[in-house]
Amino acid sequence: MRSPTSRTDDRPEWGNSVTGPLPPSVRSRIDPFIVMDVMREANARVARGDDIIHMEVGQPATPAPKAALAAAEAALRSDKLGYTDALGMPALRERIAAFYGERYGIGVPPERVVVTAGSSGGFILAFLAILEAGDSFGLPNPGYPCYRHILSALGAEPRLIAPGPDDRWMPHARHVEALKAQGAKGLLLASPNNPTGTMAVDGRVGEIARACARERLWLVSDEIYHGLEYDRPAETALAASGEAIVVNSFSKYFSMTGWRIGWLVVPEDLVRPIERLAQNLFISTSAIAQHAALGAFDGIEELEETRKVYAENRALLLEELPKAGFKNILPADGAFYLYAETSHMAEDSRALCQAMLDRTGVAATPGLDFDPAEGKRFVRFSYAGSLDEMREASKRLKAWRETGQGF
Amino acid sequence: MRSPTSRTDDRPEWGNSVTGPLPPSVRSRIDPFIVMDVMREANARVARGDDIIHMEVGQPATPAPKAALAAAEAALRSDKLGYTDALGMPALRERIAAFYGERYGIGVPPERVVVTAGSSGGFILAFLAILEAGDSFGLPNPGYPCYRHILSALGAEPRLIAPGPDDRWMPHARHVEALKAQGAKGLLLASPNNPTGTMAVDGRVGEIARACARERLWLVSDEIYHGLEYDRPAETALAASGEAIVVNSFSKYFSMTGWRIGWLVVPEDLVRPIERLAQNLFISTSAIAQHAALGAFDGIEELEETRKVYAENRALLLEELPKAGFKNILPADGAFYLYAETSHMAEDSRALCQAMLDRTGVAATPGLDFDPAEGKRFVRFSYAGSLDEMREASKRLKAWRETGQGF
Ligand SMILES: Cc1ncc(COP(=O)(O)O)c(C=O)c1O
Ligand SMILES: Cc1ncc(COP(=O)(O)O)c(C=O)c1O
Repeated sequence: MRSPTSRTDDRPEWGNSVTGPLPPSVRSRIDPFIVMDVMREANARVARGDDIIHMEVGQPATPAPKAALAAAEAALRSDKLGYTDALGMPALRERIAAFYGERYGIGVPPERVVVTAGSSGGFILAFLAILEAGDSFGLPNPGYPCYRHILSALGAEPRLIAPGPDDRWMPHARHVEALKAQGAKGLLLASPNNPTGTMAVDGRVGEIARACARERLWLVSDEIYHGLEYDRPAETALAASGEAIVVNSFSKYFSMTGWRIGWLVVPEDLVRPIERLAQNLFISTSAIAQHAALGAFDGIEELEETRKVYAENRALLLEELPKAGFKNILPADGAFYLYAETSHMAEDSRALCQAMLDRTGVAATPGLDFDPAEGKRFVRFSYAGSLDEMREASKRLKAWRETGQGF
Repeated sequence: MRSPTSRTDDRPEWGNSVTGPLPPSVRSRIDPFIVMDVMREANARVARGDDIIHMEVGQPATPAPKAALAAAEAALRSDKLGYTDALGMPALRERIAAFYGERYGIGVPPERVVVTAGSSGGFILAFLAILEAGDSFGLPNPGYPCYRHILSALGAEPRLIAPGPDDRWMPHARHVEALKAQGAKGLLLASPNNPTGTMAVDGRVGEIARACARERLWLVSDEIYHGLEYDRPAETALAASGEAIVVNSFSKYFSMTGWRIGWLVVPEDLVRPIERLAQNLFISTSAIAQHAALGAFDGIEELEETRKVYAENRALLLEELPKAGFKNILPADGAFYLYAETSHMAEDSRALCQAMLDRTGVAATPGLDFDPAEGKRFVRFSYAGSLDEMREASKRLKAWRETGQGF
């Protein structure tokens, strides 16, 4: 067996006249998605036999609902599972459109629904369809880190807005006006937000949508945590504006992260530009995932049971984490995250998370992933696991605190 | 049920002070992937009950091999199917690396294998990892249209090279030098090529790889049609250079288009930049597709049977298409396409393809998709269907010719 490609220390074809390998692009110098680095390390420990509790990643402990799995299994038997239409199977686009009637009581035409490879695929399409290289775009801080990294990779410029406790850590119509004054092209709103779990409530989503329309800014509304609320329901931006771009996914509420399936609802004039981009960049979305997603709508009862587990997890952690030393947890109304202050425990929460993983086997994500400015002072816990895991994690964290060695 | 979002003719929130909806970005103005437009139309006709023969799209008539389907079914039952490591499940990366030993007799370390959402996902990662906005990159013409459209969407500039009959329609080391002189950053090589099916043979892939290394240009080698050769085997660029970026996929040889799963082999120094991009842009690749892909390696026998069908299809069409009036078919050594001249039949092959679909139900793709300069004079037929379909298509096309109405 020849093996030229494994001899990286000895590259005959690159000869002596060159000065080493070609360099990666500048635009690939985005930060890692730290959650994934932590998960990779946690997975490696699990593979070694360590007893790890995954609280680092927004990964439900449950598989897809049974109805989704049954639909996938049926499709394995009956469908060739070839390329589908780039915008998605017509039946799924219709089913998603109908869901807006059921969930929010609003009408969405199926033609404006675009099936995507997770909301991640949706962001790539939406940002490419509305932003030029060099354009700036408002993002919540703290917020989901991939927003800023996807924007950077695509040549656009993230502009972080940081609403504080007075705004309940959520953007406000005032921020829209400020973004406009700074020349930004739009705002990303995430309610419930990640990592904070906070929500824009009392009609504030509608206010923001109307402010964007008035100021002629794009509104991209990340509604991926809709359905996971513990007090009052989240508002969709579509209820207030047909010009909002809504990003959603089967990953979280529908418990289908690894299937890589989500959707966009876009204004009519964006459908064809997005179709062209989707044809060329992705060809189409996973066929088996589309079948499974169609089935998932018959699994709502099961998903509502899972939500009850999250509610229990949340209640438990809100009680237990402070006992383990975590402070000032932000007022989380939805999603499955708690964002807690740790500056009194460690200067940099990266070191804290590393020590926590080493000493307790509890994986959590340092705030720096979500907030390049203040994130060092915070840790995010995901409570999408089982109640037993949350109990065990609480026990270990409290015990660690009692040793006095952690911090 | 409120339905503000469906009243696109009446947008109260956008008021009177605005001049209509916000415009899509300039960079979304890429051409459509015409194959997908033709497929959408063909699918719509099938839904209406028309008897369509799909020769427009590179879509095998067969499903994934049985071993892949069995692995998927087992995973449905036993795995949570959550996010995986961004670079792919370790077992799959190892299996792909081992395949290079089995298939080409070369060693590839698993650490350099990146699992992607089809080769499409691989192109996005590779181009972002090596090119800045504004960089130019050499592409074969005719060639797979998404290369140029993905590059454009990502702000890079396609530079088309058009090797002629003297080079057997494939690039040559000379083209590498010419690209370097023009300031391009690299070359995309596809052997077998789409739409032509032509291959770089007699060591030419190695020559090109060495020329790229010498000139310090990136080589992206699209090896998606490897395994589908009818005479001599295709050469991998990895055999000549550990610096080549190889793009491959389970879509074609493995007959798994709709699963959206493929891979890259990249030089060591690109692994981490690509991991950061993959974490942020995609999070991870479909878990069920990764399980299925692992299984697919146990289905090689079945896949070799399918290749025999393609060989029969190819022989049949090489004999029958000329009788139906198609001329000067390019010397196709691999893939499952024939690229035929049609300028004597119609000035613009788009009109010809439309008429052919209307009158015969045979869907084929106009050459313009693959070649913005000369494509009007060509049509691409995909012969990835069954032998019966090819027979039926030949019959219909010959009958159409006899009516004298087509052209
Ligand atoms: C706020 C938010 N948006 C989007 C995503 C992307 O998820 P997916 O691509 O699985 O839909 C995530 C994942 O954690 C998230 O937290
Ligand atoms: C030459 C070539 N490369 C890449 C692709 C993309 O295929 P996929 O994303 O399914 O791997 C195709 C699809 O037809 C192709 O013909």
